Amino acid sequence: MTAIQSDRPTVLILNGPNLNMLGVRQPEIYGRDTLADIEQACADEAEQLELEVDFRQSNHEGELVTWIQEARTAHDGIVVNAGAYSHTSVAILDALQAAELPVIEVHLSNIFRREPFRHHSYVSQAATGVVCGLGVHGYLLALQAMARLLETDR
Amino acid sequence: MTAIQSDRPTVLILNGPNLNMLGVRQPEIYGRDTLADIEQACADEAEQLELEVDFRQSNHEGELVTWIQEARTAHDGIVVNAGAYSHTSVAILDALQAAELPVIEVHLSNIFRREPFRHHSYVSQAATGVVCGLGVHGYLLALQAMARLLETDR
Amino acid sequence: MTAIQSDRPTVLILNGPNLNMLGVRQPEIYGRDTLADIEQACADEAEQLELEVDFRQSNHEGELVTWIQEARTAHDGIVVNAGAYSHTSVAILDALQAAELPVIEVHLSNIFRREPFRHHSYVSQAATGVVCGLGVHGYLLALQAMARLLETDR
Amino acid sequence: MTAIQSDRPTVLILNGPNLNMLGVRQPEIYGRDTLADIEQACADEAEQLELEVDFRQSNHEGELVTWIQEARTAHDGIVVNAGAYSHTSVAILDALQAAELPVIEVHLSNIFRREPFRHHSYVSQAATGVVCGLGVHGYLLALQAMARLLETDR
Amino acid sequence: MTAIQSDRPTVLILNGPNLNMLGVRQPEIYGRDTLADIEQACADEAEQLELEVDFRQSNHEGELVTWIQEARTAHDGIVVNAGAYSHTSVAILDALQAAELPVIEVHLSNIFRREPFRHHSYVSQAATGVVCGLGVHGYLLALQAMARLLETDR
Amino acid sequence: MTAIQSDRPTVLILNGPNLNMLGVRQPEIYGRDTLADIEQACADEAEQLELEVDFRQSNHEGELVTWIQEARTAHDGIVVNAGAYSHTSVAILDALQAAELPVIEVHLSNIFRREPFRHHSYVSQAATGVVCGLGVHGYLLALQAMARLLETDR
Amino acid sequence: MTAIQSDRPTVLILNGPNLNMLGVRQPEIYGRDTLADIEQACADEAEQLELEVDFRQSNHEGELVTWIQEARTAHDGIVVNAGAYSHTSVAILDALQAAELPVIEVHLSNIFRREPFRHHSYVSQAATGVVCGLGVHGYLLALQAMARLLETDR
Amino acid sequence: MTAIQSDRPTVLILNGPNLNMLGVRQPEIYGRDTLADIEQACADEAEQLELEVDFRQSNHEGELVTWIQEARTAHDGIVVNAGAYSHTSVAILDALQAAELPVIEVHLSNIFRREPFRHHSYVSQAATGVVCGLGVHGYLLALQAMARLLETDR
Amino acid sequence: MTAIQSDRPTVLILNGPNLNMLGVRQPEIYGRDTLADIEQACADEAEQLELEVDFRQSNHEGELVTWIQEARTAHDGIVVNAGAYSHTSVAILDALQAAELPVIEVHLSNIFRREPFRHHSYVSQAATGVVCGLGVHGYLLALQAMARLLETDR
Amino acid sequence: MTAIQSDRPTVLILNGPNLNMLGVRQPEIYGRDTLADIEQACADEAEQLELEVDFRQSNHEGELVTWIQEARTAHDGIVVNAGAYSHTSVAILDALQAAELPVIEVHLSNIFRREPFRHHSYVSQAATGVVCGLGVHGYLLALQAMARLLETDR
Amino acid sequence: MTAIQSDRPTVLILNGPNLNMLGVRQPEIYGRDTLADIEQACADEAEQLELEVDFRQSNHEGELVTWIQEARTAHDGIVVNAGAYSHTSVAILDALQAAELPVIEVHLSNIFRREPFRHHSYVSQAATGVVCGLGVHGYLLALQAMARLLETDR
Amino acid sequence: MTAIQSDRPTVLILNGPNLNMLGVRQPEIYGRDTLADIEQACADEAEQLELEVDFRQSNHEGELVTWIQEARTAHDGIVVNAGAYSHTSVAILDALQAAELPVIEVHLSNIFRREPFRHHSYVSQAATGVVCGLGVHGYLLALQAMARLLETDR
Repeated sequence: MTAIQSDRPTVLILNGPNLNMLGVRQPEIYGRDTLADIEQACADEAEQLELEVDFRQSNHEGELVTWIQEARTAHDGIVVNAGAYSHTSVAILDALQAAELPVIEVHLSNIFRREPFRHHSYVSQAATGVVCGLGVHGYLLALQAMARLLETDR
Repeated sequence: MTAIQSDRPTVLILNGPNLNMLGVRQPEIYGRDTLADIEQACADEAEQLELEVDFRQSNHEGELVTWIQEARTAHDGIVVNAGAYSHTSVAILDALQAAELPVIEVHLSNIFRREPFRHHSYVSQAATGVVCGLGVHGYLLALQAMARLLETDR
Repeated sequence: MTAIQSDRPTVLILNGPNLNMLGVRQPEIYGRDTLADIEQACADEAEQLELEVDFRQSNHEGELVTWIQEARTAHDGIVVNAGAYSHTSVAILDALQAAELPVIEVHLSNIFRREPFRHHSYVSQAATGVVCGLGVHGYLLALQAMARLLETDR
Repeated sequence: MTAIQSDRPTVLILNGPNLNMLGVRQPEIYGRDTLADIEQACADEAEQLELEVDFRQSNHEGELVTWIQEARTAHDGIVVNAGAYSHTSVAILDALQAAELPVIEVHLSNIFRREPFRHHSYVSQAATGVVCGLGVHGYLLALQAMARLLETDR
Repeated sequence: MTAIQSDRPTVLILNGPNLNMLGVRQPEIYGRDTLADIEQACADEAEQLELEVDFRQSNHEGELVTWIQEARTAHDGIVVNAGAYSHTSVAILDALQAAELPVIEVHLSNIFRREPFRHHSYVSQAATGVVCGLGVHGYLLALQAMARLLETDR
Repeated sequence: MTAIQSDRPTVLILNGPNLNMLGVRQPEIYGRDTLADIEQACADEAEQLELEVDFRQSNHEGELVTWIQEARTAHDGIVVNAGAYSHTSVAILDALQAAELPVIEVHLSNIFRREPFRHHSYVSQAATGVVCGLGVHGYLLALQAMARLLETDR
Repeated sequence: MTAIQSDRPTVLILNGPNLNMLGVRQPEIYGRDTLADIEQACADEAEQLELEVDFRQSNHEGELVTWIQEARTAHDGIVVNAGAYSHTSVAILDALQAAELPVIEVHLSNIFRREPFRHHSYVSQAATGVVCGLGVHGYLLALQAMARLLETDR
Repeated sequence: MTAIQSDRPTVLILNGPNLNMLGVRQPEIYGRDTLADIEQACADEAEQLELEVDFRQSNHEGELVTWIQEARTAHDGIVVNAGAYSHTSVAILDALQAAELPVIEVHLSNIFRREPFRHHSYVSQAATGVVCGLGVHGYLLALQAMARLLETDR
Repeated sequence: MTAIQSDRPTVLILNGPNLNMLGVRQPEIYGRDTLADIEQACADEAEQLELEVDFRQSNHEGELVTWIQEARTAHDGIVVNAGAYSHTSVAILDALQAAELPVIEVHLSNIFRREPFRHHSYVSQAATGVVCGLGVHGYLLALQAMARLLETDR
Repeated sequence: MTAIQSDRPTVLILNGPNLNMLGVRQPEIYGRDTLADIEQACADEAEQLELEVDFRQSNHEGELVTWIQEARTAHDGIVVNAGAYSHTSVAILDALQAAELPVIEVHLSNIFRREPFRHHSYVSQAATGVVCGLGVHGYLLALQAMARLLETDR
Repeated sequence: MTAIQSDRPTVLILNGPNLNMLGVRQPEIYGRDTLADIEQACADEAEQLELEVDFRQSNHEGELVTWIQEARTAHDGIVVNAGAYSHTSVAILDALQAAELPVIEVHLSNIFRREPFRHHSYVSQAATGVVCGLGVHGYLLALQAMARLLETDR
Repeated sequence: MTAIQSDRPTVLILNGPNLNMLGVRQPEIYGRDTLADIEQACADEAEQLELEVDFRQSNHEGELVTWIQEARTAHDGIVVNAGAYSHTSVAILDALQAAELPVIEVHLSNIFRREPFRHHSYVSQAATGVVCGLGVHGYLLALQAMARLLETDR
């Protein structure tokens, strides 16, 4: 992961397993926005907020861990929708805690209205804030929150 | 509760017990913003979003229930930080479900990093979305999310 | 609360939070009977049973506690649908136990077929009998049961 | 089980294990009414309500299951006091759900004030309504409720 | 139970409570196959597999226990769909363990997608294999598996 | 069940499901004593203790319940090895409590060294005493204990 | 709540729901002392300890919360018997923690010898000390403890 | 993953972690069949059933997720033995649910007779049917079940 | 502990904490037999059974552990009423398991009808058999059982 | 333990394990008062209350049990800080219950704000009252409470 | 993985997710030793112990599984610090059990003094021994233990 | 306990209940090393490490507590194998925490592969490090670890 050369703060936006299937599967539930649409919306919002964003997706827990480790020096903050790994991955929690960066957790759906095993998120324990249930818009709100956090940090 | 006369959508912003103590108590933790400051920030944000807001606080579970009931006909959406009652009040959950309005739950702190009894919120079961851990800014993000939801509903 | 002057036994019928919304909200679920309709049906049934009834509703746990305390000397029995407070209020349980009156618990819906947190009722621990799932008719059956209990007590 | 020939709706009243011992054992607790007395009281009440009743008792879970299965075509509703099997029998629950008839559950005592293992009833999950703690009178109230349900169904 | 006179291996196919209601109740869920249809399908499959089958159903836990005991000397294997007793009967588990025969457990539905109390089966602890969720076909697969096990045993 | 005509106290010895398989199954574990051997040993011991015994076994929970009910007037005490039903039958517990007779619970094996679901016995809650892990001899000790209890009662 | 004008330290003594029924209900259990008697005893003890006391009772959780909030500036310490709310109110816990005053929790009865749901008190998490099971005398001991704590603070 | 060009329905057979070690490790437990043997047996069975099969194994949760995602368009059904990931992977569950294909879960051993943490499978929640404890033969039965399901779907 | 010189098998009878208070405390519950009376009764029974007994009591867990260790070489069997330590002492369990002697556990009362924390006994996990609820007589039955076990061992 | 010769009521003050380390270890937490200081403070308070006190400490559970047993006849009441044994010793609970004396439990710290395993005390189940979190002063309050109880008993 | 050619026993030292961040992140907690430093220390220790070591790290659960599988034939023992996967990976447990090699588990920190979800390790169930809380030195002790185990095995 | 006069650091090696039985009992499990052998091995290792060791064993929880208290001033570190008390003794935990010395916990067996009640150790909460499952060698590794810790402390 090469650090983005920019005067602007850079934010890593991480997407976990199955988020690459957005828009394809069950559009009546998840809507017709694809992950590419979300990426574009984030890019637009970032432009407005004067942030650089690095938008990624992986189905591999280990790859997500590695990206978070690299973000430690390459980025200024992390917006993370770890998908199913939110509920099972202590490794991602550890990586986030070690990153020592501001973290905003996002979920497209309201995980608290779904099955009980989705009510607990390890990611939440490493996050400054959590935004869930607001669909694609949640990513944009998370970017706004990140912009605000990065301003405060300076 | 008199319905606000306005062409703009109106949003009830509810604050539960002890939120009236903001800014006074433990400012090193909760910051120096008072509830009045939050109210002002919400009013400003609402102005931008072309929303009317009705901002209230009560220490009484029953009063919060009553206000939510009234919102059913008087408002178009509810932003709610039920404070401690989030964790204990089935009555507020029932009122929110009966209101049949979009609901955004807000918490100033990240409740998932606090004591275990704060990890569960009855309010979440009636909310479209949840925003927590982002301080005063979380209210403004919730208003944005509400504005988006109300647009979609139209 | 003034004691009702009457030779007939008097029964306090208590309704907890959100029951004032009956008939208004989700009529396809709860039916079109309003709380006023239930009050009227109870009054008619009471007339037949030669009982006086005092029919009340409150969203406030504390007010329900106070009314139960007053019932101790002002009434001969209590029919109580504590709504959401059934599941969370030790204070109402304590008040009912201190009242030393016959108590019949009523629920419009069958709480055992709903969410797990509705399966337990503190009120049941202070009640002689429980009637649930029978809608408005459940109130009338509870009044009949109360009439029978009061006869037995004499 | 021969279907009862009658223009009146017919109701199966089922009694589970040990209910045949009523009136004999511990009369200071359960009263002096025998199961035959309850049967008679139900017959009288049914006469008033213009219902036919078929009153049975068995100590055998399997026999209760069989009777419920037969009720599917032979009766219009079931009033059931499954006694101890309420707390342990998934087979009776399944039979009741398959019967696709209105079901009213009855218990002589208030099971929620007894040992914890009596607080849960599988029967409740298949019942429209539950009446407990009201002794013999509970059966009569259940019949009234059944009469009301059968009227509504027509 | 008379032992079946045959050179072919014989398999007892046991069906627990309420399985006699198949095809009658809720056909939209359970399909229109009756237990007699399943029995015929098993007979046909057995013919192909050169097995004798003895197909039974009972609503009585005790009768199922007795049949399993008799199978010890009368049969060579047991295919068992214990229905609701799967979840509650230690007696059937004990009988199966004492039978010292190969056992295949069958369920028409996928019990792991139903209520939590159906996720645990005592029968599974005595079974060589489990087949569930595959409807009537599951019985035939179980017979195939049994045929294979009996071959291996020889 | 005809009451045994005798001046001697009579004791019902009840055996639950699968105990009829003793001596046949897994003799390396349960020994080679059959239930008939136990019956004979009990008869001999009873002769010495000047007791009459009525020794029975059933695989049917309901039959065991019925026999316990009859024992109320026909016998002076109950020795019960309810086998698997010990762990699952509230109906047998209720019957034993209604019998109002001294009860001694027996288990051949030490149930506390077996699977966790065998550690709890409903029967224990109705028993004066429990003897377990001592094989056939446990029955004889239970008879001695019963003889002592019956002496004390006189 | 007007701050008491005094050179002496002032202590708020809070009483929760149903404590206003003391002496009236079940005197064989709770004794014949009324809440007024306790108030007088506290006043006398306070006089000796050179403390001012402000003695209050409410059935309303919200009112108790408000009084605790006001105590922050109006009083020097809080003695609190929150009654049933001890076991259910996170709002009172939050208020006590925000008050940043010494808190002594009192219970008339030994809550650890009562029902399990009374063994846990949210109030205890905000209290310096707990006194329970010592009846009216417990209030006086709590005042002594408070006097000692206030001395130490100076 | 290139879609297999064929008129026949195609089935993805997925094998999770450590299944590549079959036949090598502990042959006295798992038998001497290697994964290649299972693949061959599946190919033979598929030939008979007129199915195409695509047989794969991975130790990587993320790779299994990706393959399931691809199966959505490339295959007609999935037979899955997720091995250890059955018990821990919400990501695989999500992928299976998003695939919107028939799924048959297979386990070589009877997981319900092993350690408690193996009794729960996330995969089961997305599967039509489950076959376990039947060794290699279980794969062939699963293919038969899949063939039947695919026929029904047409 | 000197080994008893005798041709007869010797049995250590151990009594745990508070058993030295028998007969003194609460005689209406525990009877008027003192521990000395039990010792005498055991001596008499042992004489009949041709056993030597060594009867001891200690309030110290460590002393009980030491005596059990010594019994390994000095005695042939152990009858143990560990009193309260039954429920809390893993050390006594370990000592009993290391002793490699037959062990019979005794309790005067039926521990399964007392508080839940008395339902579990670590001692049971090391015992061949358990006798409880039969008062002093239980010791004598335990000695008989031990005599039988020692005969079998020879 | 020789009974103290005195006309005054005598109180045994028991201190459990590690309380002999007070003042030495972690003085910034536990203060600089040694156990000898507490003993002196108790002696002074006792003098005022006209009580005799017998102040003891032991690290041995068995010794504490023995002292409580002796107190039955030698003392009139027990003040007990059982330290760590509060949370683990059923033996001390049994001894206290057998003593049939008034018991006041004391803890220096507020055990409810410490680790969860310290929230439960067996001693509380035998105590009239509990005082915790008030340091050395708690002992003196306990003595006052004891003096009051002993007056009432006379 | 090529087997190391050597007469010396070879040991695979596995490091799980985030261990590659040692020395970089939070040095005040984890010290300034990097994973390379640990590798060097292990190499030095191995030299002394006459062992070959193969030192690896991966963030991928699947890669760790594969390496363990390969170790079966390529190495003589495994020292494993699985980091976060210790708490969540059944796949690694299965791989370790299949490897049939001696396994020593290492953790830098004392996992039992951290969050509850770190108290349980699946790895422990496959390990001969566990060393935790001793930092880098723990690796060297594990190597010593491995050397001893390998000597014993010969 | 007299402090050992020496320039070398001194380490207390504590052994809990039943460890005095090593080598005698079940040698096929625990090996033939006696506690004296372990003591000698520790002495030899200590000589190499230039440590003094004080090696003790007790079956008494209280004695172990006392020795730990004395170690506070008499020794520089504690190696402790508390045996069964590891799982039950809060008193030993408290003593270790008060000692304010480095502590290494040792277990001969891997307690995580034994019964569930052995998986939790109170001692671990006060230990710097834990070594288990490595037999006698584990003591020597613990001494090495202690030597390293004591060097670091200087």
